[in-house]
Amino acid sequence: MTMHLNAFLMGVGHHEASWRLPESDPYASWDVKHFQNLARIAERGKLDSVFFADSPVLQGDPGRRPAGKLEPTVLLTALAAVTEHIGLIATASTSYNEPYNLARRFASVDHVSGGRAGWNIVTTAGADAARNFGLDDVPLHSERYERAAEFVDVTTKLWDSWSDDAVLADKAAGVHADAAKVRAINHRGRFFRVDGPLNVPRSPQGYPLLVQAGSSEDGKQFAARYAEAVFTAQQTLAEAQAFYADLKKRTADLGRDPDGVKILPGIVPVIGDTEAEARELDAELDRLISPEYAKRQLAERFQLDPDDLDLDQPLPADLPAEDEIEGAKSRYTLIVDLARRENLTVRQLIGRLGGGRGHRTFAGTPVQVADALEEWFDNGAADGFNIMPAVLPSGLLAFVDKVVPILQERGRFRTEYDGTTLRDHYGLPRPINHLETSAR
Amino acid sequence: MTMHLNAFLMGVGHHEASWRLPESDPYASWDVKHFQNLARIAERGKLDSVFFADSPVLQGDPGRRPAGKLEPTVLLTALAAVTEHIGLIATASTSYNEPYNLARRFASVDHVSGGRAGWNIVTTAGADAARNFGLDDVPLHSERYERAAEFVDVTTKLWDSWSDDAVLADKAAGVHADAAKVRAINHRGRFFRVDGPLNVPRSPQGYPLLVQAGSSEDGKQFAARYAEAVFTAQQTLAEAQAFYADLKKRTADLGRDPDGVKILPGIVPVIGDTEAEARELDAELDRLISPEYAKRQLAERFQLDPDDLDLDQPLPADLPAEDEIEGAKSRYTLIVDLARRENLTVRQLIGRLGGGRGHRTFAGTPVQVADALEEWFDNGAADGFNIMPAVLPSGLLAFVDKVVPILQERGRFRTEYDGTTLRDHYGLPRPINHLETSAR
Repeated sequence: MTMHLNAFLMGVGHHEASWRLPESDPYASWDVKHFQNLARIAERGKLDSVFFADSPVLQGDPGRRPAGKLEPTVLLTALAAVTEHIGLIATASTSYNEPYNLARRFASVDHVSGGRAGWNIVTTAGADAARNFGLDDVPLHSERYERAAEFVDVTTKLWDSWSDDAVLADKAAGVHADAAKVRAINHRGRFFRVDGPLNVPRSPQGYPLLVQAGSSEDGKQFAARYAEAVFTAQQTLAEAQAFYADLKKRTADLGRDPDGVKILPGIVPVIGDTEAEARELDAELDRLISPEYAKRQLAERFQLDPDDLDLDQPLPADLPAEDEIEGAKSRYTLIVDLARRENLTVRQLIGRLGGGRGHRTFAGTPVQVADALEEWFDNGAADGFNIMPAVLPSGLLAFVDKVVPILQERGRFRTEYDGTTLRDHYGLPRPINHLETSAR
Repeated sequence: MTMHLNAFLMGVGHHEASWRLPESDPYASWDVKHFQNLARIAERGKLDSVFFADSPVLQGDPGRRPAGKLEPTVLLTALAAVTEHIGLIATASTSYNEPYNLARRFASVDHVSGGRAGWNIVTTAGADAARNFGLDDVPLHSERYERAAEFVDVTTKLWDSWSDDAVLADKAAGVHADAAKVRAINHRGRFFRVDGPLNVPRSPQGYPLLVQAGSSEDGKQFAARYAEAVFTAQQTLAEAQAFYADLKKRTADLGRDPDGVKILPGIVPVIGDTEAEARELDAELDRLISPEYAKRQLAERFQLDPDDLDLDQPLPADLPAEDEIEGAKSRYTLIVDLARRENLTVRQLIGRLGGGRGHRTFAGTPVQVADALEEWFDNGAADGFNIMPAVLPSGLLAFVDKVVPILQERGRFRTEYDGTTLRDHYGLPRPINHLETSAR
């Protein structure tokens, strides 16, 4: 069995202080050449895919770290032009897009890339994003997930609105397509009314790989119903195993093949040629964190005033319950559990979060990193991993040049791409055309 | 004085029957390599820009001609990756997008292309598009233009929400940007409430070139207020001169420099080495039109039943007035005037429209085409032209290889790019940052 590996790319690295390292280009977050270089490195390592998170709002304090990003479907297209194999996954929000536009854009990326597009479906937490779209506050968590479900139903119907064999291209007869195979969808739902058909033919993959990343109760049910790959934050093997078993069961309970959902926990590998070198890089990054800024961010996530947190004390005893959090619910609980389990001060917690914002961090040698991945993969905790380099490009280079060869040698990772599409890489089938099936 | 030249690219050519020619690839409309090839040809000819029209709906009958297109901001990005100089303009609708998303996408294309993005601002006619976005019918023409004006105000503020010098990248101090130079816009209007700031820094051009293409009364006022380049359909020199003078005057009346709006009438050049060859190509294309299909399309534009039109009779005497048309108003009037002026039957009118849908068509030798362009350019009818090849790539190749050298020899067109951005090519300044000015 071989694992799946996705490179989650963010600016000059996932560690919030990575831009302050001497090696980092502090303008790289908006430089397409930086990302084209990263995509080429990931493709050299035969990774399944690269991935970009996103939200339609300026996240974080632009005073303290690079803020703002290139729009991800634009970025994916720029990467498609300089790569041949690697999958290309981007986040887009179901709360702040129209399904017709988004279906069309992802179908176009799938066409342009020859079948390498994936969509990480998010509902977008946060009132600040809502206020860029005429709302005063973010819609309720459950409401966002209901809209997301209908949104995916609409986009799927639009992607199926052309049969794969609709185009005839009969020049002599002057018949371009079989018009009966290009169908209106006439969707009428609670959130959307969309007639269709889509204005682009069915794409190489049928439709983009559907990815999901929320691990709340709503998020897990959504993933079980729709997702083909899941990004998740898990701190311990036991937690990851429980999540894995739970999500596979939910998927099976809905009548889907549990192997049709690939579960990829995140990991921030900090790689050194020796263990001491890895730990020193980790420590150097943490020293560059501005603790006051990080405290404000943590307070925001906890729906507290920054003054409620003391850098040198543990978290306050009286924190909101998960169901009072309207943002990223499961991440909130993970962070509180981590702080309590290891009895961390706020300052120590900030250090632990600086690299991966709640994802597992692991500092070690290439062999130790490979062992860490194998342990989870072999013990029912993961189908693969979401690799989140702390520093870019150096962290990705270290992973591709030092860890991947070990995994390949152990027979745990591909040495060549054996398919052409993102679905091929993840071992997932091209979806059947549901509208066509129902019409027959 | 040199003219500006834009290549308006559409599938395998603007002539509706172009896909039926032996040379045409009937799948090319969705093939990024086809468009990358066209962009490279246009860049070899030192053209100012390429342009893609768009609407968020499946236009035309997919049974009769290639229907559906790649989403144009995705397509522009794919072209940016394989070109270095040429400008990249795409249509996007103000009626069926959110300003935050669209501002971000065009800013991203401008970043990725190094300052070569342009936005053709359209309000999108037609009930069929409206029905992809939860509406029963298209909003009123005047309502669409009011929304468009506010939409452009919002996007402009978002593009100005970062000062050009906001990013400091001070690693030692841990200060990435001057947070005071990244400003909320707090827009509160009739159609939109948007807090901002945008989540991407100000782009190389400040913001994309603003292009407009409607020639109704509302459209002309909108162009005078906002547009930096205008695409327009004009059949005769006298009409083009009147439009040119009128739009320049409207622009000056609003306190803008009339030279800040470049007016580019469309032309469909059908080029042959001899006049007879050009006319034969023109006739061959017209023979491939399906007259019954074209009649249905014409009836739809006229808001008539197809049975109201007789292929071998002139247009009915009793047609709707322009103000009863909720679609493309000025194009409607142009077509009626053309048919009446030349006393054309419906069949003859269909032939005249088959190439350019109301744009001027001109069949001739390279010298005759160059003369035709110069005549309008020298006589106050145009600052340049929107070149609409009837067949692609052959029509663009003929224009670039045969007509451009004549214009260059006559000193009427550049022989090298002398700037790096789309605005440079059109001789237009980088816009000042209005929010910054008002803050000082």
